[in-house]
Amino acid sequence: MKLGCCYYPEHWPRERWTEDARHMGEMGLSCVRICEFAWSQIEPELGRYDWEWLDTAVATLADAGLQIIMGTPTATPPKWLVDAMPGMLAVDAEGRPRRFGSRRHYCFSHPGYRAECARIVTAMAERYGENPAVIAWQTDNEYGCHDTVLSYSDAAAARFREWLAGKYHGIDALNAAWGNVFWSMEYASFDAIDPPNLTVTEPNPSHVLDYRRFASDEVVSFNALQVDILRAYAPGRDIVHNFMGFFTDFDHHALSRDLDVAAWDSYPLGFLEQAWFGDEEKRAYMRQGHPDFAAFHHDLYRGCANGRWWVMEQQPGPVNWARYNPAPLPGMVRLWTLEAMAHGAELVSYFRWRQAPFAQEQMHAGLLRPDGSEDTGAEEARAAAADIAALGEIGAPPRAVALVISYEPAWLFQTQPQGCNWRYIELVFEMYGALRRLGLDIDIVSPEYDLAGYKMVVIPSLPVVSKGFAARLAALSCPVLIGPRSGSKTADFAISDTLPPGPLQSILPLRVTRVESLRDGAVEKGRGFAVTRWLEHVESCLDAEIALENGRPVLLANDRYRYLAAWPDRDLLGDIFRGMADEAGLATYDPPHGVRMRTIGTLRFAFNYADRPRRVSEFVDDVDELAFRIGGDRLDPGGVAVWEV
Amino acid sequence: MKLGCCYYPEHWPRERWTEDARHMGEMGLSCVRICEFAWSQIEPELGRYDWEWLDTAVATLADAGLQIIMGTPTATPPKWLVDAMPGMLAVDAEGRPRRFGSRRHYCFSHPGYRAECARIVTAMAERYGENPAVIAWQTDNEYGCHDTVLSYSDAAAARFREWLAGKYHGIDALNAAWGNVFWSMEYASFDAIDPPNLTVTEPNPSHVLDYRRFASDEVVSFNALQVDILRAYAPGRDIVHNFMGFFTDFDHHALSRDLDVAAWDSYPLGFLEQAWFGDEEKRAYMRQGHPDFAAFHHDLYRGCANGRWWVMEQQPGPVNWARYNPAPLPGMVRLWTLEAMAHGAELVSYFRWRQAPFAQEQMHAGLLRPDGSEDTGAEEARAAAADIAALGEIGAPPRAVALVISYEPAWLFQTQPQGCNWRYIELVFEMYGALRRLGLDIDIVSPEYDLAGYKMVVIPSLPVVSKGFAARLAALSCPVLIGPRSGSKTADFAISDTLPPGPLQSILPLRVTRVESLRDGAVEKGRGFAVTRWLEHVESCLDAEIALENGRPVLLANDRYRYLAAWPDRDLLGDIFRGMADEAGLATYDPPHGVRMRTIGTLRFAFNYADRPRRVSEFVDDVDELAFRIGGDRLDPGGVAVWEV
Amino acid sequence: MKLGCCYYPEHWPRERWTEDARHMGEMGLSCVRICEFAWSQIEPELGRYDWEWLDTAVATLADAGLQIIMGTPTATPPKWLVDAMPGMLAVDAEGRPRRFGSRRHYCFSHPGYRAECARIVTAMAERYGENPAVIAWQTDNEYGCHDTVLSYSDAAAARFREWLAGKYHGIDALNAAWGNVFWSMEYASFDAIDPPNLTVTEPNPSHVLDYRRFASDEVVSFNALQVDILRAYAPGRDIVHNFMGFFTDFDHHALSRDLDVAAWDSYPLGFLEQAWFGDEEKRAYMRQGHPDFAAFHHDLYRGCANGRWWVMEQQPGPVNWARYNPAPLPGMVRLWTLEAMAHGAELVSYFRWRQAPFAQEQMHAGLLRPDGSEDTGAEEARAAAADIAALGEIGAPPRAVALVISYEPAWLFQTQPQGCNWRYIELVFEMYGALRRLGLDIDIVSPEYDLAGYKMVVIPSLPVVSKGFAARLAALSCPVLIGPRSGSKTADFAISDTLPPGPLQSILPLRVTRVESLRDGAVEKGRGFAVTRWLEHVESCLDAEIALENGRPVLLANDRYRYLAAWPDRDLLGDIFRGMADEAGLATYDPPHGVRMRTIGTLRFAFNYADRPRRVSEFVDDVDELAFRIGGDRLDPGGVAVWEV
Repeated sequence: MKLGCCYYPEHWPRERWTEDARHMGEMGLSCVRICEFAWSQIEPELGRYDWEWLDTAVATLADAGLQIIMGTPTATPPKWLVDAMPGMLAVDAEGRPRRFGSRRHYCFSHPGYRAECARIVTAMAERYGENPAVIAWQTDNEYGCHDTVLSYSDAAAARFREWLAGKYHGIDALNAAWGNVFWSMEYASFDAIDPPNLTVTEPNPSHVLDYRRFASDEVVSFNALQVDILRAYAPGRDIVHNFMGFFTDFDHHALSRDLDVAAWDSYPLGFLEQAWFGDEEKRAYMRQGHPDFAAFHHDLYRGCANGRWWVMEQQPGPVNWARYNPAPLPGMVRLWTLEAMAHGAELVSYFRWRQAPFAQEQMHAGLLRPDGSEDTGAEEARAAAADIAALGEIGAPPRAVALVISYEPAWLFQTQPQGCNWRYIELVFEMYGALRRLGLDIDIVSPEYDLAGYKMVVIPSLPVVSKGFAARLAALSCPVLIGPRSGSKTADFAISDTLPPGPLQSILPLRVTRVESLRDGAVEKGRGFAVTRWLEHVESCLDAEIALENGRPVLLANDRYRYLAAWPDRDLLGDIFRGMADEAGLATYDPPHGVRMRTIGTLRFAFNYADRPRRVSEFVDDVDELAFRIGGDRLDPGGVAVWEV
Repeated sequence: MKLGCCYYPEHWPRERWTEDARHMGEMGLSCVRICEFAWSQIEPELGRYDWEWLDTAVATLADAGLQIIMGTPTATPPKWLVDAMPGMLAVDAEGRPRRFGSRRHYCFSHPGYRAECARIVTAMAERYGENPAVIAWQTDNEYGCHDTVLSYSDAAAARFREWLAGKYHGIDALNAAWGNVFWSMEYASFDAIDPPNLTVTEPNPSHVLDYRRFASDEVVSFNALQVDILRAYAPGRDIVHNFMGFFTDFDHHALSRDLDVAAWDSYPLGFLEQAWFGDEEKRAYMRQGHPDFAAFHHDLYRGCANGRWWVMEQQPGPVNWARYNPAPLPGMVRLWTLEAMAHGAELVSYFRWRQAPFAQEQMHAGLLRPDGSEDTGAEEARAAAADIAALGEIGAPPRAVALVISYEPAWLFQTQPQGCNWRYIELVFEMYGALRRLGLDIDIVSPEYDLAGYKMVVIPSLPVVSKGFAARLAALSCPVLIGPRSGSKTADFAISDTLPPGPLQSILPLRVTRVESLRDGAVEKGRGFAVTRWLEHVESCLDAEIALENGRPVLLANDRYRYLAAWPDRDLLGDIFRGMADEAGLATYDPPHGVRMRTIGTLRFAFNYADRPRRVSEFVDDVDELAFRIGGDRLDPGGVAVWEV
Repeated sequence: MKLGCCYYPEHWPRERWTEDARHMGEMGLSCVRICEFAWSQIEPELGRYDWEWLDTAVATLADAGLQIIMGTPTATPPKWLVDAMPGMLAVDAEGRPRRFGSRRHYCFSHPGYRAECARIVTAMAERYGENPAVIAWQTDNEYGCHDTVLSYSDAAAARFREWLAGKYHGIDALNAAWGNVFWSMEYASFDAIDPPNLTVTEPNPSHVLDYRRFASDEVVSFNALQVDILRAYAPGRDIVHNFMGFFTDFDHHALSRDLDVAAWDSYPLGFLEQAWFGDEEKRAYMRQGHPDFAAFHHDLYRGCANGRWWVMEQQPGPVNWARYNPAPLPGMVRLWTLEAMAHGAELVSYFRWRQAPFAQEQMHAGLLRPDGSEDTGAEEARAAAADIAALGEIGAPPRAVALVISYEPAWLFQTQPQGCNWRYIELVFEMYGALRRLGLDIDIVSPEYDLAGYKMVVIPSLPVVSKGFAARLAALSCPVLIGPRSGSKTADFAISDTLPPGPLQSILPLRVTRVESLRDGAVEKGRGFAVTRWLEHVESCLDAEIALENGRPVLLANDRYRYLAAWPDRDLLGDIFRGMADEAGLATYDPPHGVRMRTIGTLRFAFNYADRPRRVSEFVDDVDELAFRIGGDRLDPGGVAVWEV
């Protein structure tokens, strides 16, 4: 695994560049990402390019032996472009143009802006595409950040109508698919259809879902436009994009098909604070991040681009953008780096090399402080570099548990949650966490992924199930868990004809006759567990493997297939997964609170995310006989141990 | 009492209609409401009517012996109409047009849209007005739903100016009435007056109150336009509108004067979740609804149209629109049906016959599931039909307690609450609940209603009191309770000249010299009760019947008139009402938590809304000697008992 | 100290004026403010003035011996003006014009409105400027109330561009100062710059800070326009403006340089409810107000205009504008009046003479009730007048502790709080309260103020420190506390080159290498105290005077200079300030909960804000020997004692 950092030569005096490049190398970094926000420096006014500074920067970095990842600057169109083409601004759900003054102020659907992007990307790729130091290209930056996937502009409306016409081939088909007979919502032509914002009450969910599919497709095609240019001018270079955490607004599987590498930006502390976690977890892990956060995304993005993935931005200290921004515990930057290694990352790149003293992110820590001195992240990066060197080549990720996720379910459930505490990504994360707490190794994959060879398959919830997917499930021979609301909807966002789980009835002979959403605090008890948020009433010939105290079935099993008819608590998930793992012949563990394990090749890693010391011997037998490669029995807070399996 | 359902033939294949009609009859239903959202099916484009399907549907239902209630489809103007007349869209308080894509996207004040409504209603009434199967017409649907009474459109502004000119006959009168000398808000002409939205800080409350009165009048005249047409073309048919729960945005008493029957849509679970109730009550009653919710509205709407009232839509299972949507306890659909009977309903109609698999309400249960199989509501409807048949004709509602309410107080207090926890409808509901928990039978009536013959009169709060009403109160001979803030304002929204309670000082010689609003958690204690939210300082020659520990009077009595100078808790209300009932010679009861009683004719009903069994003998003596018509001593959760008084 | 009231002759029948004037005098009032909202009465239509009523009112008041403070009516431009000049409306951050119908609906930057203001002020000043009864002029009313400092209108944008051009003399300088190289935010000309609203994510903080500086300057120049006219036409009269509580949206120090007297409007109950205080304090003091609220602002505004200050509006009973509006405890109106005296006020003027029965503030108590009878405030005003007379001339405020505050820090920290519980004004208030609870007398002064002669200097937080200020601190010889984030930023809103505390490193040899913001509930413990919200990591040669249990320094001292590296709790502040006071030779006290002291001249005042009785002897020795001028040992709730020191 390589280490790197994100660097902005345009932010610093030219005199400093050589020293920075030397310092990076000395610290153990071999890669550097540059340029992804530098449009106004490269092209200060329309058509006038200034390459001199960038040529110099590239040469300086290359001379120091660094490999360069070059970003296209399309996330930050300059003011002169916005003024020349105001229609390129995205429009928010309230109907207001989103103005210049920060970043991502563009609408993915604007043809004029797309042409400008093609122009600047072509210009950059022509100049640096075959530069031997430039080993990879990053398209744009964090697509969708700041809620920018959905735009309600005229440009978006026009392309949406075309998209619909292409999909439905006739307005009657659309009216039928959406059920527009309801509430007299029928349209006489595609031209009559608007984006689904500012309606009096909720718009037709089929309308919304198609708008979200359209918007996702727009991101994919916007990206493909750049990829095509880069492939032409930068042959053999890796093309990557840096995705985000807990972000589902577009289809990352679809977009990744055009990439060589799926990268993501890992900010464990900020995401703990901003996500749905409760106060207790937020306090317990405020300086460590949630122990499953980074691992979850590592396993997710490994599943996106044929197994190749990077951490493009790794938090090196406090950030600036969460409501509260504490500092990582000593050791966490090293721990996060090694956690990425344990999941098979090719690169971990710290964001950013040096804290900027100005503008929006001036309170975002870097490896260096604003004054150029080393911050504590630098020391930990050095330690991680030493660990990586000591471990050498490590093997491939195992193929144990497949967790099947998709992006459409997130859009579908946001459109019609039926209970306001139903959050798809939270359910997925709960299932992931329950598996990981048992020491199981997980691949997060799309429904299109080949599931053969997995020892266990978990599908948290898949509302729209194709007949093909149902057939592929039927062909599996391992234990399979299928979660609530699976098979509940058609692709048009209607209830399955035969009631849920629809096409899955071929493997699960049952009908969900009624569903209930439950307010926070309302629980339905079973023996040793409780059900919250969601409960399905099921009619079936199958016996309940697990039931509530009142007899209502919660888990129904048909041979190797299990259907979970409720939102489970952690106890229930632990029971179910332990049982499935036993059946599958997978060993499980019971590490103490805050400790997690991960196996890769012949190495097993243990990470202590707790704020107190732990011991490997608390959950692994015969520790005296383990061949430790890093650390030993004692796991300090932020500590890591690695041993041969 | 008859049973019925809401049916959408346009949602289902024609082949199914006959079977559905037969099935309804078999289930015990004799009425069916249709057509209230079918504009785009009836008139697919401007001026082209398609009657064929509707003729067939009407004939099919009629042939099965069903009585038809036909809705006018004006709540869902089609897209072609909106595109032809975009000015018809309502404008929200933020100044944004409310767009097409759901329902109720019209402004009540738009003359063009009014003309279109007259046209479509005329066309329908001409065709079906004298059809013998069509026994009633529903105007529009749920006026005001989705916050649609108030529109800030140009059309509304224009008509508001006319309305003001008609009311004040001169701008000086308006300036004087509103007190526009304050903050230089004087107008030189009616043309200078805008709707009161988007002001820098709160607008003049008189301005707001007149805007709300105007908006209410617009709803009334919009409805009257349809009523006039229907009366002409559909002689002898009942004209109804389906009102909602806890909804006060327009004057239901005024609108009902144009109706034959006041109907309402009863969703006990969704309204528990969405209303102001605390977490404990929301949890305790999450599958039963609040035990006073349906009863309250039954008694309210019975007071609107000379005693004739229906439940137009009755929840038959989980709904889709609350934040959380649990399922009713077994038995609740039957219980709700019989509760309506006990309050004198002529009809209970379930919404809807069959759950739609598509569009916005696909998660709203029906009597049938989306696949056409019977859901559990069907079974309970059948049971209710049997009960109704068994009970036969029952007598008239008693005339015991009059609870006097009005709609203007809600507007007035929302405009100027003075304490943000003051909610008029909550105070009314608290008083209603305190009376009902004593087993008292209540009529909810307007101040214009003849109060003669009642044994007890309760006025929760009536800020604007006319001299006429004060005189009519003075003529009563029964105990009367008058709640806080009564008589505190003039009709122009000024403080009463003689201080509150203004005109009521003729029966209550006291002056409210100061009022206090108290934050949640702040209480003022009395013996066995506490006062919260609101406390008035009173100067009076009267002795305090009840006082705080610090001596401040809370209840002042002058012969049969009592004035309550605070927001009371349940203990205080119970004491006051028990005392008044004793004085009035009305028997009171003390049923256990969750149980409610209701008397009609010679029958007494008991309903168990608790989630555990209760017994009639817990609160009625000599149960062995009761002549039970339904049930017996034991009241299961959701259970009902009926006996002869 | 004089007493007065705010009076609106235009609200009352002319017959009443003489009686009101007589009554004021009889009550002990000698001043009366009029006219500040009367534009539409003075000028009912463009260019037509009606002076007759005002001449009469002025004469009537003068004849009764009252001194008149005349307000300019520019906070309430009439509708005819808005209709003639709609561009004068302010535009909110959402881009919507803020409409007519309440007050303050103008944009400070609109040249046309400025011209109209000059016209009406000139007209009034010409007429009454030399009237002997008119002793003072108030400009406008509560600048900034209802969030009106910031406007995003075209007028504001145009003047902002001019302001920037005047400041930066070249767009390159602006781009460099703002760090616009970040995210390609560079501008090619000043014309390209917009106000910083509606951006996709946060705008550049330097952009925001300059917009706030500009907006503050606009208020100052708007005021200066009126001051210049008044100085010309009303020679020798005091010019005042009435500021508000906890309000920092413009620079009050800068504006006050143009005034003779800084006045403020004191509403202790409403501000307790609306401010950040917790539920417990809000309940404990709901009828008294926070015991430091009024004192804090007295000491703040005394520091604005060379020590001359008034209470222009004093709460006399319940108000109408807070979420909850309880009544003051008996005695509080007198207590508040005497608290003002103890801090050196020249005038306390009650708002308002008589409660208006109409319009927005009809629920705001006055000294008289709406019916003209005396409310309880009148009785307390009379008692206060007697106390003031009894005390006679009192001496000058002492020069003990200087608390240094500024307005820019509030804008800077709101722009980039880094932790959402960081509130500048709250930190200032916490430090003020800790000092006042020790019985210390405080001057709140700006960084420009001469600090010589103070015994102790406290700087809660001053992010931008000029070299000049650092040098002036170095010249002091008393104990100085410098709070967190001081010296952390340059004037351009960048991080100090040498890391914080930047220029203060000359007196405090330390570097803040990292900062952490902590969520509510997260604490870092020290011995006998805890740190919350904010914690700095410090590298220094200095020893920690106080440290956390984990050894991290919290208070570092270098001779008489102390640096506080965290958000302190009350225990920590008490320890620090007691130590500093001992060092400075200032006596400290430990009055019981709710009791506060204040010394002026040779008098010491004690005020009981608790809701139970206290005794002076609880915190002062040898009470028997005190020469009480008012009261004695026992302090009832709302009670005041005054003795000779």
